[in-house]
Amino acid sequence: MPTRQFRRLTSVEDATRRFLDTVETVRTVESVKIQDALGRVLARRIVSRKYLPAHDIAVLDGYAVHSADVRHASARNPTILQLVGESRLGEPSRNRVGRGETVAVATGSILPKGADAVVMVENTRILGRGRIQFRVSVVPREGMTGKGEDLTPGRSVIDRGNRLRPEDIGMMKALGLATVPVVRRVQVGILSTGNELVNTARKSRPEKIVDLNRPIFAAMLEQSGAIPVDLGIVEDDEWAITSALRAGLLRTDVVLITAGSSVGKKDLVAHCINTLGSPGMLIHGISMRPAMPTGLAVVKGKPIVSLPGFPVSAMIAFRVFVRPLLARLSGAPGQVDPTVKAVLKKRVRGIEGSRTYVRVRVKRVRDGFVAVPLEAQRSSILTSMVNANGIVTVSEDIQLIEAGTEVSVTLTGDLPG
Amino acid sequence: MPTRQFRRLTSVEDATRRFLDTVETVRTVESVKIQDALGRVLARRIVSRKYLPAHDIAVLDGYAVHSADVRHASARNPTILQLVGESRLGEPSRNRVGRGETVAVATGSILPKGADAVVMVENTRILGRGRIQFRVSVVPREGMTGKGEDLTPGRSVIDRGNRLRPEDIGMMKALGLATVPVVRRVQVGILSTGNELVNTARKSRPEKIVDLNRPIFAAMLEQSGAIPVDLGIVEDDEWAITSALRAGLLRTDVVLITAGSSVGKKDLVAHCINTLGSPGMLIHGISMRPAMPTGLAVVKGKPIVSLPGFPVSAMIAFRVFVRPLLARLSGAPGQVDPTVKAVLKKRVRGIEGSRTYVRVRVKRVRDGFVAVPLEAQRSSILTSMVNANGIVTVSEDIQLIEAGTEVSVTLTGDLPG
Repeated sequence: MPTRQFRRLTSVEDATRRFLDTVETVRTVESVKIQDALGRVLARRIVSRKYLPAHDIAVLDGYAVHSADVRHASARNPTILQLVGESRLGEPSRNRVGRGETVAVATGSILPKGADAVVMVENTRILGRGRIQFRVSVVPREGMTGKGEDLTPGRSVIDRGNRLRPEDIGMMKALGLATVPVVRRVQVGILSTGNELVNTARKSRPEKIVDLNRPIFAAMLEQSGAIPVDLGIVEDDEWAITSALRAGLLRTDVVLITAGSSVGKKDLVAHCINTLGSPGMLIHGISMRPAMPTGLAVVKGKPIVSLPGFPVSAMIAFRVFVRPLLARLSGAPGQVDPTVKAVLKKRVRGIEGSRTYVRVRVKRVRDGFVAVPLEAQRSSILTSMVNANGIVTVSEDIQLIEAGTEVSVTLTGDLPG
Repeated sequence: MPTRQFRRLTSVEDATRRFLDTVETVRTVESVKIQDALGRVLARRIVSRKYLPAHDIAVLDGYAVHSADVRHASARNPTILQLVGESRLGEPSRNRVGRGETVAVATGSILPKGADAVVMVENTRILGRGRIQFRVSVVPREGMTGKGEDLTPGRSVIDRGNRLRPEDIGMMKALGLATVPVVRRVQVGILSTGNELVNTARKSRPEKIVDLNRPIFAAMLEQSGAIPVDLGIVEDDEWAITSALRAGLLRTDVVLITAGSSVGKKDLVAHCINTLGSPGMLIHGISMRPAMPTGLAVVKGKPIVSLPGFPVSAMIAFRVFVRPLLARLSGAPGQVDPTVKAVLKKRVRGIEGSRTYVRVRVKRVRDGFVAVPLEAQRSSILTSMVNANGIVTVSEDIQLIEAGTEVSVTLTGDLPG
């Protein structure tokens, strides 16, 4: 039987700050092979123990010289030097460049001793009898990269808290690392509540609804680099919810509990969370649409997020609260979503005092993008999310954005060509 | 021994268009479980065979009514109806709302027969003896979502070519699908050439260089949803390169061959590609910095990308050419990178007629972001990529962007808080 409404709503900003302030980073470190480290969060700063490059190397195809020897060279007044050898790629440099001499080099080959610059092949001519004509001057260190110019021993290379990228994996490989210490992946329990929910539809039970939130969250967690732990479906029953939450908290770092979209249910979930320990529910009811009934809780140091039951609301609440939470837990910065500027094709309405997330379809036009707000915006309509490829966020102090206004759209899907 | 320079450079735009125009989408379709479909490209349009929702449902906690019964209700002049039952979540609705009657409903519960709207509990009062007071009027269909309002049988739900997202997985689950037809992942051979290259450094061979490009590409391909196929390292030898390319093309959809950064090598790789079949090298030498010596080829319908040897150049060329190629091959739109607007802290120089990719460090400041161009911009300096978290693209017709200018930065890494 329905009961009371929310007494007071907290702003998205305040809710996020208060919630994240209570959360501590996962401290467990594990070692992974560098080729398995993509997207993992670095647990300890990487410091170079090497010179990179290990030698002076040529960065052009051309000729290694004493720069002083070609100081006066020009197309009008070329300088001629004697070719005394070639520094081949991957071979130790056995050559030495004396005054008046030059050695042929290729991009990446080790610079011969005595040389301090490389002249690009395009600025030279082969004259025969081993004589090379130089038609430009070079300054010392031109056309080469010096030993250690990229990195020297002791230099900090990648900071802890960085999410490792392909370039970082390349760098670790260059430094001779085989493994890397990373923060253990965050384990996230996903629990759905509701007498109406089933895992699979059966013709004999047409009154039941298939739970979409657990499969959706599993995919969203995978995208965020976290590990979903399925805690199943429980009925709207205090004992069942409390037991499932308690068991989930033992196995995971965070629990996402879905339901409580209705005021009747929300009281039950909030009550169950509060019986588990302190501080319990920190924030319940947020000035946002959809996902207003979202609850943010901490029990014995572990966060619990109570999400609305409609998948659209649950996904919005996940984007707004769970993604920053996961970043905080892993000690990494929040991920930045792709955005585009687009011209709004129809006016959109905000709700005064609430942050409104309007689902739109972004399309390319000749000179940019347009954003068409979807007709259906209700959180009960899943196509309002599936047919959208972007979200326009209408801030709390705006009630209306007129058609024709350029807005920033957070992309949630591909932009068809 | 170094030879000639590039005769003519092609613009990034022209090169991309000409190359992608020759490429055909992978046609092989495979079936995957919907929970494994995240990021996969849908091969066939999904059409609904269901009504969603399957029944008229309440989307509020409150009371189901004949809207006509509360047509004149207001706080001043409330209407009273008789409570005749409750429609519980997940239970078939056995109730019927007659004129003058009401049934309690919860968000998501099936609307009882006869009702055409739901009044929010906040706008009602329980008076006792089963009498409920209504303090607002409602219009028909208010507070409910009708059967099929989200989807009806025959409606197109997700188009082919879409990269499947969490919301799409939720929708497929709602439609009762267990598996989904997706485009086979693109297989990409990665081959490095160079006498100087080894897989692991050895103290006894200090003149060798560890190949970074294959581990970097493996990670970049993983990010792009493609499957890397390691074709190893071969020496700078026509027979070795041709054999490895031929073997690679048999096993994969695309081959990335790295080296050819030097004019000497580039001729060798280009020559090997051209001996394998037509049309061979389409474009060689692109007006961009770094990665100018990139080559784009097609042999017997399969694309080959010849990338420069320095990892920085190779990564830029991958971003510019390989990522759109992979999208084209899988039939999906290109992915949109996250960008931010940032104020340039130091002037950056472009090269007239070339597109220049300047690596920058983006930092948060009080009222936005600043982008600091890294001191080292040479492609031989790997830290120029590792220390960067963004790229500023300087177009062909600009030689200089002054400090203080607001620029769009493509993010390549996290934005620290």
